[in-house]
Formats: sequence, C-alpha cells, structure tokens
Amino acid sequence: MKSNLNIEMLSTGDEVLYGQITDTNATWLSDYLFAQGYVITSRYTQGDNLQQLIATLQQRSQVNDILIVNGGLGPTSDDLTAQAAAQANHESLVLFPQWVEKMQQYFAQRGKPMPSSNMKQAMLPSSATIIDNPVGTACGFHMIINNCQIYFTPGVPSEFKQMVSQQIIADLQSKFPILDKPCCYRLTTMGRTESDLADEIESTLTVPDDITIGYRSAMPFIELKLTAKQSQQPAMDKLWYELNALVKDNLIYVGTIGLAPLVSQLLREHHQPIIIIEQQTAGLIAYPLYNNQAPIICSQVLGIDQDIGQIVNQLKSTYPQAVILALHDYDIASGRFKLQLLTANHKYYYQLKYNGRRYHLATEQTILAAVAHDILRRHLLRLPLIGQYTWLQTEQIDSVG
Amino acid sequence: MKSNLNIEMLSTGDEVLYGQITDTNATWLSDYLFAQGYVITSRYTQGDNLQQLIATLQQRSQVNDILIVNGGLGPTSDDLTAQAAAQANHESLVLFPQWVEKMQQYFAQRGKPMPSSNMKQAMLPSSATIIDNPVGTACGFHMIINNCQIYFTPGVPSEFKQMVSQQIIADLQSKFPILDKPCCYRLTTMGRTESDLADEIESTLTVPDDITIGYRSAMPFIELKLTAKQSQQPAMDKLWYELNALVKDNLIYVGTIGLAPLVSQLLREHHQPIIIIEQQTAGLIAYPLYNNQAPIICSQVLGIDQDIGQIVNQLKSTYPQAVILALHDYDIASGRFKLQLLTANHKYYYQLKYNGRRYHLATEQTILAAVAHDILRRHLLRLPLIGQYTWLQTEQIDSVG
Repeated sequence: MKSNLNIEMLSTGDEVLYGQITDTNATWLSDYLFAQGYVITSRYTQGDNLQQLIATLQQRSQVNDILIVNGGLGPTSDDLTAQAAAQANHESLVLFPQWVEKMQQYFAQRGKPMPSSNMKQAMLPSSATIIDNPVGTACGFHMIINNCQIYFTPGVPSEFKQMVSQQIIADLQSKFPILDKPCCYRLTTMGRTESDLADEIESTLTVPDDITIGYRSAMPFIELKLTAKQSQQPAMDKLWYELNALVKDNLIYVGTIGLAPLVSQLLREHHQPIIIIEQQTAGLIAYPLYNNQAPIICSQVLGIDQDIGQIVNQLKSTYPQAVILALHDYDIASGRFKLQLLTANHKYYYQLKYNGRRYHLATEQTILAAVAHDILRRHLLRLPLIGQYTWLQTEQIDSVG
Repeated sequence: MKSNLNIEMLSTGDEVLYGQITDTNATWLSDYLFAQGYVITSRYTQGDNLQQLIATLQQRSQVNDILIVNGGLGPTSDDLTAQAAAQANHESLVLFPQWVEKMQQYFAQRGKPMPSSNMKQAMLPSSATIIDNPVGTACGFHMIINNCQIYFTPGVPSEFKQMVSQQIIADLQSKFPILDKPCCYRLTTMGRTESDLADEIESTLTVPDDITIGYRSAMPFIELKLTAKQSQQPAMDKLWYELNALVKDNLIYVGTIGLAPLVSQLLREHHQPIIIIEQQTAGLIAYPLYNNQAPIICSQVLGIDQDIGQIVNQLKSTYPQAVILALHDYDIASGRFKLQLLTANHKYYYQLKYNGRRYHLATEQTILAAVAHDILRRHLLRLPLIGQYTWLQTEQIDSVG
C-alpha cells in the first residue's frame, strides 16, 4: 500500500467552473473524507465539454489513486459524464436493465410514468459497477482506468452525500485501509499580523518536519493550524501547548467556531439579552449575532444626527436586564471611534483608535465589528475588556458604576 | 494561433482546497477574462505541498496554453509557489534586488522597518520576469514552462485583481489576440420558477444552435443568459428582444447590477433619503443598501415587543423628507407578513403572504428582503408597488394620503 494517496475530486459543470455557484460538495467531501482519514490532495474543475472531459479522465487517472467525479449524470443532453467515461476507457455505453427497473420503481412510487429522457441514465460504460442512489434517478458507478479507482457521483448534494457516506467510503476503506489518520489542531488570533506571528513562531518554536504549521489571514483574524499524522500526536501536543502559550494574549478561540458564533453561544449560555447600537458599521455588529441565534432584543444603525446618549438611556430604562453595546463616531481620517458597554452595574466608555494598515471602508467596518464582538467575549469571559492589539490604541477610558 | 486556447487557473492553498474560504478570485477571473474574450477552460485547486505543486506545474503546463497561478506568494513558510516554480523548471531561486528595494519603500512609507521574513518575497526563479504589485509586498511573476505562459499572482483579492487587470491582460492580448470575442447578455427576473420560464422559452422562442441560453437560480431570482460569438450578434439581438418581451412582467434588471445595488443607485439619483425598519430579517434589508452607498438615514431591527406604529410615526415626524420602509410581523407558519411604505404624501400598508416553496429561515429572510427592495424599486420607477409574482399573494391593501 502506498503511504500517501493521491485523491482528487473532479467537479464538472459550467456553473461551478465560472463560480456562479459555490461548490459546496467539495467542502463537504474534504471535511467528510478528512474525518475518515483520507486527505483530498487536489480538485479539478471543468465545464460541460465532452472532449475535454475525456482528456481529463485519461490524464487525471494517470496521476491519482482515487478520483471522485461529481456531476453530469442527469437526463439532459449536457450531462456527458457516462459518455466521457466510456470513451476515456475505449469501451461503449451499454444498457443496465437493473437501473431501468430501479427508475421504474422510483417513478411508480411517485405515481408518474418514467419520462423517456431518463433511459439515458441507465446507459453506463460496459465495465462499470453500479453505485446505488437511494434518493434519485442518477446512477452512480465505479470504474478502474489506468489503475485509478474512479467513483462517478451525481451533483445534487443530498444524493452525492448519501452515495459517498453510505457506499463509497466502505469501498475506499476496504481498498485503502488507513492506519495512521491525519489530525489537525486550529486556533484563531486577533491583533497581530501574519508576518509578525510567523517571525516569532519560526524564531522561538521548533516545528518537527512531519508537522505542518499553516497560517490563514482573514482581517482582522489570523488562524494557525497544525497538521500531522495521528502517530505524531505527542509531538503535536507539545507544539500545540507551546503555540498556545506564545499567542495567548491574542488567542480568540480554539477550534473553528468563529468569533460571532462564539459570542452568540456565550450570550445564550449566560442568558444575557443584548442590544446593539452601531453607527458606521451598517449592521455588521448585529447581523452575525442574529445569524447565530444570539439573544438580541433589538438593534439600530444610527443616523449621523441622532442623539446616541438619549437612545442608549431610553433603551436601558426599557430593558434594564440587557447589556447594551454601542460603537459610534468612527472618524475615517483618524481611525478614532467610541465604544460603550453598559452592563447591569457598570458603564464602560472608551475612545479607541484603529492605527493598523488602512483598507477600504468595508474591511475597516469588519475590523470594527470584530473589536465590538471581542469586547463582548471579554466581558462574558471576565477578561480585560480591551485586548492589547498592535493596531488598536486606547486613548481614553471612563468607567461608571 | 490556436483557435481554442486552454486556459487554466491554478488555485493554491489548503483553505481553498478544503473549502474553508470561497475562491472569489476564481469567480472574478472567469468574469473578467470572459469580458476580454478569454474563456477559462478549467481550474485546478491544490493545497500547500511543495512536491505536489512542482508536479502540478509540470503536468498542467504540458496541457495548457496559459496558466494563472494564484496564491502562495506570502512571507510565511507555507507559501511555496516561487520555490515550486523554480524546481518545476529546474532552476534556482535568486534574489531580485529591485523587489527588495520596492518592499523597503513600501515599509518606509508606512514608517516601519521591513520584517526579515519579507526577504523571502524577493526570491524568485532565475528565469522569472517581475509583475509589479502596486498595493502589497507579494511579487507577481511570469515564466514559460513547457511552452506554457504562466502568471504567478498573489491570493489577496485586491492585489490579484490589480495585477490581472493592469498588467497580465495586456500581456495576454499581445501574445494571444482575440478575433471573435464571445459576448453575453444577461437579465434577472423574480417571481417565476426556473422550469416555468424554461418551458415557456423553449416552446415559444427559436434559439439558434450557436447561441447558448443559460439559467441560474439564486432564490428568489432567476438569471437568464445568452452567450455566443460576437459574429452572431444580429441573431443574439433578435433573440434578446424576444426574451425581454417574454419575461417583461418579471424583469428586475438587465445586466448584472443586482437588486440592492440598483435600488441604492435609484435612491441616490432621486436624492431620496430612506429609513428601514425590519423585524424578522436581521438587517438583511438595510445592510445591502448601506453596502451600496444608499442614502440611508438610519435603520432598526425591531424587538418583538417594540411598538412599531410609535417608532414609525416618531421617525416620520423627525425626518419628514424620508421614505420609510417597514417589513414586520412575519409569521413563519403561515408565510404572512406586513409591509409599509411611507412616502411624502402616501402611506401604503400591505398584508402579504409568501406561498412559494418553503425553505429554512435564512433563505426566507433573503426572499422577504428582496420583496422589500423590489417595492422600493417599483416606487422609484413608478411601477405598481407589488409585483404579480407566483409565490406572493396580496391579502390586504390600505393606502392613506
């Protein structure tokens, strides 16, 4: 058995190629196979073109051990995958009567006659083995071309997922048993740049050759990721401990939850209703909290001439049990803004200044929203309310209560 | 010159391969190149693995005329593209002093010393030609491997887009001039299903073989697209005219502007300030308007026990020149909701019912927000305020003023 499998997903369809729809099957397959110990090594995406598809199947089967082909098994004329598979392996399409029977049952159960166009879905390459589709008429199939195991699957996500998880995975496990599964540790930081973190990590920590450290930047967050085989776990655990110590002042969360989902979860766990007032951030503070089922009472995006003090006081007297968070008076030129947090007993009032790299407004709004979410996280976890972040300067603090 | 170019995008990075981030660069590049007459034929996505990247560059350069490689030019150790490009072409990395100078200027302008890790970004394959990056430290470059033109670009979208549109496209146009550009006409409809539209189009219109008609569904919108070579333009124009007549009651806009950007533009052109009140839509009505620079005075997402009548009246007396739009009391079980539009002279009050296919809440919120945006579009264009949409039922109308 080879120790490193080349596993490629081959996604077909103009809409996926041109990015008009997001390839959610690809995301799902990566996560699902990783959890089973199989790491996708590449993905190839192409349009609905017969000659290209034939060439692709021939080329990609030469360099991969496993190909998962997705899409193009429908009844219409632009669904070309079975035809391409047959030609790629120099064989013909033949009728598989057991699939005709299956489709006839499918339509009979729905009280409809089978449209003649569906017959096409029972025409498979002569060397194919059927992979059952319990929820649709597109027939999955398996073939071996150039010693590569190829699984052909339908594009409809529900059909694709059932086929992979109920049938293909068992076949993979029998043909390519995984002895040493990969594992992955992740954490997300805020307040330092990627190169700043990388400099300290590379000069301070010793990363063994068989552990990979990855960085992913999505302003204002940097995710750090360790990946290795499970047999490396003791070394992983040691490095993970060191890494956590190194980033501790900037650690926002461990895992993949995301800051807004984390804050929403903390608010729910603390049974803490909240009101969001924002001014230059267009709803970016409130929306991700709504979207993650946070207990928000209401939210406002203030106009430039509205009296924020009056609005906050009125809401506080109507909803005394609520925490009120307000971020306002962002001055683009200077980067200065005001952040208020009204809790049961305290009123915190900060004048802060964003003095990091300047971006266009939408990105700076995202950064401000993250600062607002972070102060909620810190309040709920009883941490100092404002993080020591390289691009955030505290100019003034008032605390009443 | 070949008549059909093989143009592949090679996206690198674990986070793109595993679907942790959406490859927005791929979507943008497809659209941008298409508009210039170049059609992307495939996309290859792989992780941050040096040996695989070397093999990929060697393999993909053999079967493509043009490769656009995206990502992996950052300062950290998992950015491996330059190293892979050098090894793929059996050459070494050398220091390009002009890029060191460029980066030193970049940091000097920001009043910071250059971190030592950035030096890596000036190490390029010896045969590389620099492609300037006016907005970042990642150096783009061009190489020829296996007679394939390869352009290496940074993953940061703003840097990627500038590099493609300001530099790479000119190089492509000089090396591969396009004689018969593809052209594409698009329009977006609302209120009919894809199969309903397709049935009427296919039974009513004659679509010539060399014109392709495409459908794209993104609830609640269906986009229709005609594609052909520019030499087919007379036939395209005729079909386009017929198609516009066919969909006219459901036509939202021609082109690709999007409903919220269109409404924002109309509000700006009419110098019409607006206030948005919503209740179950979490800011989805207001946010896309803010995001497209609509003249919004302020917005609120109401709590369940807030007095909407009082809030609307108070805002109307404070801002008499504003249009106020309110969507509230959405009842998930029945699909009923209320929509108010207060203009200078009128108050329109509708009870509507969404009676289309049921989705999870986030999608239904998107549909409600589109109905709200559409009533603004219709008001500004002096059309009947509520469209005759198959999934929208008007149960009650009150008009005062």
